[in-house]
Amino acid sequence: NAPLSLIAGPCQFESRQHAFDMAGKLKELTQKLGIGFVYKSSFDKANRSSLSSTRGAGLDAALPVFADLRKELGVSVLTDVHTEEQCAIVGEVVDVLQIPAFLSRQTDLLIAAAKTGKVVNVKKGQFLAPWDMKNVVAKVTGSGNANVLVTERGASFGYNTLVSDMRALPIMADIGAPVIFDATHSVQQPGGQGATSGGERRFVETLARAAVAVGVAGVFIETHEDPDNSTSSDGPNMVPFKDMPALLERLMAFDRVAKG
Amino acid sequence: NAPLSLIAGPCQFESRQHAFDMAGKLKELTQKLGIGFVYKSSFDKANRSSLSSTRGAGLDAALPVFADLRKELGVSVLTDVHTEEQCAIVGEVVDVLQIPAFLSRQTDLLIAAAKTGKVVNVKKGQFLAPWDMKNVVAKVTGSGNANVLVTERGASFGYNTLVSDMRALPIMADIGAPVIFDATHSVQQPGGQGATSGGERRFVETLARAAVAVGVAGVFIETHEDPDNSTSSDGPNMVPFKDMPALLERLMAFDRVAKG
Amino acid sequence: NAPLSLIAGPCQFESRQHAFDMAGKLKELTQKLGIGFVYKSSFDKANRSSLSSTRGAGLDAALPVFADLRKELGVSVLTDVHTEEQCAIVGEVVDVLQIPAFLSRQTDLLIAAAKTGKVVNVKKGQFLAPWDMKNVVAKVTGSGNANVLVTERGASFGYNTLVSDMRALPIMADIGAPVIFDATHSVQQPGGQGATSGGERRFVETLARAAVAVGVAGVFIETHEDPDNSTSSDGPNMVPFKDMPALLERLMAFDRVAKG
Amino acid sequence: NAPLSLIAGPCQFESRQHAFDMAGKLKELTQKLGIGFVYKSSFDKANRSSLSSTRGAGLDAALPVFADLRKELGVSVLTDVHTEEQCAIVGEVVDVLQIPAFLSRQTDLLIAAAKTGKVVNVKKGQFLAPWDMKNVVAKVTGSGNANVLVTERGASFGYNTLVSDMRALPIMADIGAPVIFDATHSVQQPGGQGATSGGERRFVETLARAAVAVGVAGVFIETHEDPDNSTSSDGPNMVPFKDMPALLERLMAFDRVAKG
Repeated sequence: NAPLSLIAGPCQFESRQHAFDMAGKLKELTQKLGIGFVYKSSFDKANRSSLSSTRGAGLDAALPVFADLRKELGVSVLTDVHTEEQCAIVGEVVDVLQIPAFLSRQTDLLIAAAKTGKVVNVKKGQFLAPWDMKNVVAKVTGSGNANVLVTERGASFGYNTLVSDMRALPIMADIGAPVIFDATHSVQQPGGQGATSGGERRFVETLARAAVAVGVAGVFIETHEDPDNSTSSDGPNMVPFKDMPALLERLMAFDRVAKG
Repeated sequence: NAPLSLIAGPCQFESRQHAFDMAGKLKELTQKLGIGFVYKSSFDKANRSSLSSTRGAGLDAALPVFADLRKELGVSVLTDVHTEEQCAIVGEVVDVLQIPAFLSRQTDLLIAAAKTGKVVNVKKGQFLAPWDMKNVVAKVTGSGNANVLVTERGASFGYNTLVSDMRALPIMADIGAPVIFDATHSVQQPGGQGATSGGERRFVETLARAAVAVGVAGVFIETHEDPDNSTSSDGPNMVPFKDMPALLERLMAFDRVAKG
Repeated sequence: NAPLSLIAGPCQFESRQHAFDMAGKLKELTQKLGIGFVYKSSFDKANRSSLSSTRGAGLDAALPVFADLRKELGVSVLTDVHTEEQCAIVGEVVDVLQIPAFLSRQTDLLIAAAKTGKVVNVKKGQFLAPWDMKNVVAKVTGSGNANVLVTERGASFGYNTLVSDMRALPIMADIGAPVIFDATHSVQQPGGQGATSGGERRFVETLARAAVAVGVAGVFIETHEDPDNSTSSDGPNMVPFKDMPALLERLMAFDRVAKG
Repeated sequence: NAPLSLIAGPCQFESRQHAFDMAGKLKELTQKLGIGFVYKSSFDKANRSSLSSTRGAGLDAALPVFADLRKELGVSVLTDVHTEEQCAIVGEVVDVLQIPAFLSRQTDLLIAAAKTGKVVNVKKGQFLAPWDMKNVVAKVTGSGNANVLVTERGASFGYNTLVSDMRALPIMADIGAPVIFDATHSVQQPGGQGATSGGERRFVETLARAAVAVGVAGVFIETHEDPDNSTSSDGPNMVPFKDMPALLERLMAFDRVAKG
């Protein structure tokens, strides 16, 4: 029943300067509010809707920056991995390896991530029931790594729509892994804008409040100082950084009631 | 931004004695906690899964008791109506006429309920999107009655399952009608147990906490001193009365944060 | 394993002249193709999306025409009923009473329809699983009427969308009632166009072919000589009459293979 | 409008002897019926529900057999690939590389498969709308390979259930790629039996008939001489080989009507 933690950062790695800016601001904010913090950044977007979407800076450009963020700012870093090969390389640098939702059933990837010994955060596939995550978690723990997080990020609900079933949170908590609520991707409208994925930023707070009141170990929120002009696919879902302080204060107030 | 109200009572009318017991206990509890209270009771269950399910005591037995509850205990009373004819009769006695979810698109029923001048609480059909309630509300207000409540009670999600989309709460609030969250029927597993509907009581609090944190005018919770031995179809969903005080205190704490 | 029957007609009753025109044309066409035929017409649309949608001519105007259609053209007539009171009145005149999908769980309506002794066609609610229709059928047969049809017309699939699960057809056939596939309402996009319901006419044939190949007793297709200028809510779903001959010939060819 | 083709074989590679037996029998059967045939076999099941599920013989054991099947029996061979590295290796041997549904959005895998120049069959993700496949197909064609097939295999419908939307077939055909209907995985109940995926074999024919009547380039059906004693996760969905001749004859009859 530890207080709420925050996994946050921009959707994707943009530059060393941008990463240090964002991580620094988020570190300062979360320290002030007494929230545990993990900096999130993606070096590649391997499952973008279309070929013409931007892909990210790549492993070679991002990893040294991730290493420096940890060393210089003392923040924990999370990034997502897409292949077995990436796991060992990325595992040398970051604190948390994240398995994308589409890949949550890929056994070899889960095992490779587990073998790094780092924390593994598995996002629940949009096609999975919450109880299906028991087998997913067992793939990691059965490979000798007990440090697994599971993340709710919405279930398929008709076409181009996700729905967040708040019952999934206690069901997944019963598996024994800390549960994270991804408020950014839960408001995604996958495929809903032609060649990129749309979203509805206004519901990020709606769903985050609900999840925190139900009780979660952490929330995952992508943020950017100027989401609508970022290069990211998640622009429509990211919270402007200026709105983060008030949002986090409200979430902490709900968390205190939930865990009080 | 008034504090949370509670619509509560047993699934169905059992007897004068039982109604006075339940309404009395709930009145005492809600007064102590400072929660607005409406007593809910059904005189008939017109849409039960099968012919052999019990139907309720009927209008003639229940209405005089509803009248006496109002007069003697000073509580507001809500009951559901299924035909135009019932509206005028029931409207003479109760404070709130509730339109069942399956009937939320029946124009004549909505108009007849509106014409009573009493508050009309329309449950959102399991087959409706939250924005579809705009037309439903307009059927009532367009008939000259501005006192409409809308109630979220889950959307169809595959077979024999409902899901509560918390985004529905702010979407319906934008329509302009106060929004109620029905935590009892939202955990129903319709048709899931052969000839009656099942449910999962453990999620009543899960979903109620989520909804209150998002922000609602009220919650609807069916309760009974002994749900598993009640005659009701909603036994598996009703909260034992002994658990209500602690549940309501937690919900009020979330409500204060949500509206603070 | 009788050959395919057709339930067809315009969405709603327009006038005596229009009814005789449509019923006459459809009778001639189905006789030529050797298809059993029931003329469908609604005297009222009681569950329209909004108050401002047209409602239909009403019982008093339509019933005499239905009686004359039967007498003068020798066609069977189906219409939908919305209240217990209508059942007895309508049952005097028509051959088949149809229970709308939203009302498929209303016990009193099902019993009243059953008591007429006429054939009762129950549309499966968008919120029901196919196996849930067993209890619905039992409400009619348990009231002494063995002449029940069940109609598939789509299940809720996210918001404003229906999906036709072809597995529902054999599952409902196992209940023992002849199964009809409603190709018109299965392509409806409920609520999807603001204050009326939209649809996609191009998929009427897609879904009808699928259902006939799986094996059904009949198909339900709304048709109109000029759907886009009809007064009906189902304009976007109705098949232009000129396209019916070729469509029915193809469906009969599939039916012969399915039942051969 | 070429006649129906068949992609068939056991769920997974068992042994050289078994592969030659199955491919030989299927070749003989499809030649007799005049159906184009592609032999399907998986060398690995990379996304099984749990760690304890069997994984398959592996690339090294299966590839030489696939090569010999092509050379000695003259059959085309399809297998699924899970990583970029596998594409080049597998592409040396087989005729068709299949992208699993969970991986249908993984850009690098699609490009690597495209670069082999072989036919690429992309299964539509359970989390995708049919129109979302336009971008998926463009990832392959944009990489210089015009030989793309798309396969319908069900969409997420609540938890542990898939539904086959027959409208998806013409929608995907409009993209320009031949459409295959996978009747085996469409009846899967993902995660529905604890640590393996369940299914309902009885609906394989139901859905295959529907799809062929709507109109498809081919059907995908897993078959085994003794499905209930196979090592495969798809045992509950596979059609016993003895039932294939009659099933295929019926499907061909529907195909002739559909394309006549």
